[in-house]
Amino acid sequence: MPLEPFFSGPGLDRADPLRARPGELEGLRGRDTARALIWSDGAPALDDSRLCWQAPSGEEPLFLGFDDDGAPCFSALIAPQAVDSRAHLALLGELDPQQAPLFAAALSLANWHRRHGFCASCGETTEPNRGGWSRRCGDCGAEHYPRVDPVVIMLAEHDGRLLLGRQPHYPPGRYSALAGFVEPGETIEVAVARELKEEAGIEVAQVRYLASQPWPFPSSLMIGAHAMALDEVLQIDTEELDDARWFTRAEVKAALAGDEGAAFLPPPRFAIARTLLDHWLSA
Amino acid sequence: MPLEPFFSGPGLDRADPLRARPGELEGLRGRDTARALIWSDGAPALDDSRLCWQAPSGEEPLFLGFDDDGAPCFSALIAPQAVDSRAHLALLGELDPQQAPLFAAALSLANWHRRHGFCASCGETTEPNRGGWSRRCGDCGAEHYPRVDPVVIMLAEHDGRLLLGRQPHYPPGRYSALAGFVEPGETIEVAVARELKEEAGIEVAQVRYLASQPWPFPSSLMIGAHAMALDEVLQIDTEELDDARWFTRAEVKAALAGDEGAAFLPPPRFAIARTLLDHWLSA
Repeated sequence: MPLEPFFSGPGLDRADPLRARPGELEGLRGRDTARALIWSDGAPALDDSRLCWQAPSGEEPLFLGFDDDGAPCFSALIAPQAVDSRAHLALLGELDPQQAPLFAAALSLANWHRRHGFCASCGETTEPNRGGWSRRCGDCGAEHYPRVDPVVIMLAEHDGRLLLGRQPHYPPGRYSALAGFVEPGETIEVAVARELKEEAGIEVAQVRYLASQPWPFPSSLMIGAHAMALDEVLQIDTEELDDARWFTRAEVKAALAGDEGAAFLPPPRFAIARTLLDHWLSA
Repeated sequence: MPLEPFFSGPGLDRADPLRARPGELEGLRGRDTARALIWSDGAPALDDSRLCWQAPSGEEPLFLGFDDDGAPCFSALIAPQAVDSRAHLALLGELDPQQAPLFAAALSLANWHRRHGFCASCGETTEPNRGGWSRRCGDCGAEHYPRVDPVVIMLAEHDGRLLLGRQPHYPPGRYSALAGFVEPGETIEVAVARELKEEAGIEVAQVRYLASQPWPFPSSLMIGAHAMALDEVLQIDTEELDDARWFTRAEVKAALAGDEGAAFLPPPRFAIARTLLDHWLSA
């Protein structure tokens, strides 16, 4: 059975070919059914767990695609202000999972546009292009596409126990899967092994892909995996982690059940780490 | 058994913590065993399938890591000139697979530095930082990390036949797996389904991850997958593809064996598409 992390799902029909046809996009924006995403405090606004819409004003260069009823959906590109991602994370507890892929796409693109107003190749200003799915430099002509940064996030297992760690910014008691960016020149499997070696000092084998999740804080693609550790002696990178330790199946089960006195506080339901832990317990 | 595409493997010990210690890197550069990658025509030079090295001159800000003998390896960041990637591809036929991960890392980073001399956030110039694994803006202080762009590449199957397509720049007769960039807001599985719908007009189910490969032209992470198509009627996006069609197992087998009169020319051995085809035939 496929794992279904939060933010999974098709979202809108992105209708990619239309991005190259600005005249048609303008026509769509003028349709009676056209709608524009409402933003609040740097994130898509929510009303009772659902995204909020209004009639387009013409200031929404991002064409998100068509919804299930065929209505064309647009968005402004620049979030009104940059907000601590923790404020965004608080929203996720309320968000309807069906609407999460669209929330992720819109927030990730807005984050990218806000930080990419200039051409990395020549330093001149860039303008939105292709329905907001790229930016083009008016000076050197370079076309820049939104970043999607692959991150590996993994459960390492040894002798029936799982390795989980604490990042310094976690709430008290929280432990979660270790994670890190895939670097140039690496496969997913090599990145998993390198990160576990760097952060916890362990060697692993049998790295296995499990599921992925877009994570728009600001623009990651979380790639969830499982690995078997060759031994259990930890050497923790204290610049990256407050702590890391092995947890038994009973400890993981109690934590996920929210038992009083559980050994740790698990990651929230919208994090792929939680999906990986649920999957591990069910296997 | 894990699939092993070209460019797989650990490469060097990247020794990440040293990147934040410029003094220690300077010390390593002065060691007798230190060596610097030699470049030629915009790519790492090869001598009889192996990378070539010389003593560091001090103009190599990129710390690649330690080789198996503990020798610190460096590289210049800016490839002498931008070269058509087809010239680089021609090199791959000669390259020792053991050295491919290092070739990929060095070329991908050089490509990125060459195109990212300016701060996308404010337009001012940036300088290499963290041993060449980032660039920092001296004006606004923004830190920029090398791009790794996830790309899905997939075999779609229906009734025992495989869907393969031709991109306009392919050599005559070549067919390969369809592919496309993962976009913001998508999982790997959603991107596979969207690309197959966009390029070939088919709906798919049961998307399954198979293997990944760094692809330094300029900075992709190829994510190989298999999907079951729900029907076989194609509607080809002729702006992306010259052609796409279904091939039987016997046709794929003959093509991979290099039979005279085979139905198509397969992708080269260093492409993950070839690994996916080999795997499909062996299953």
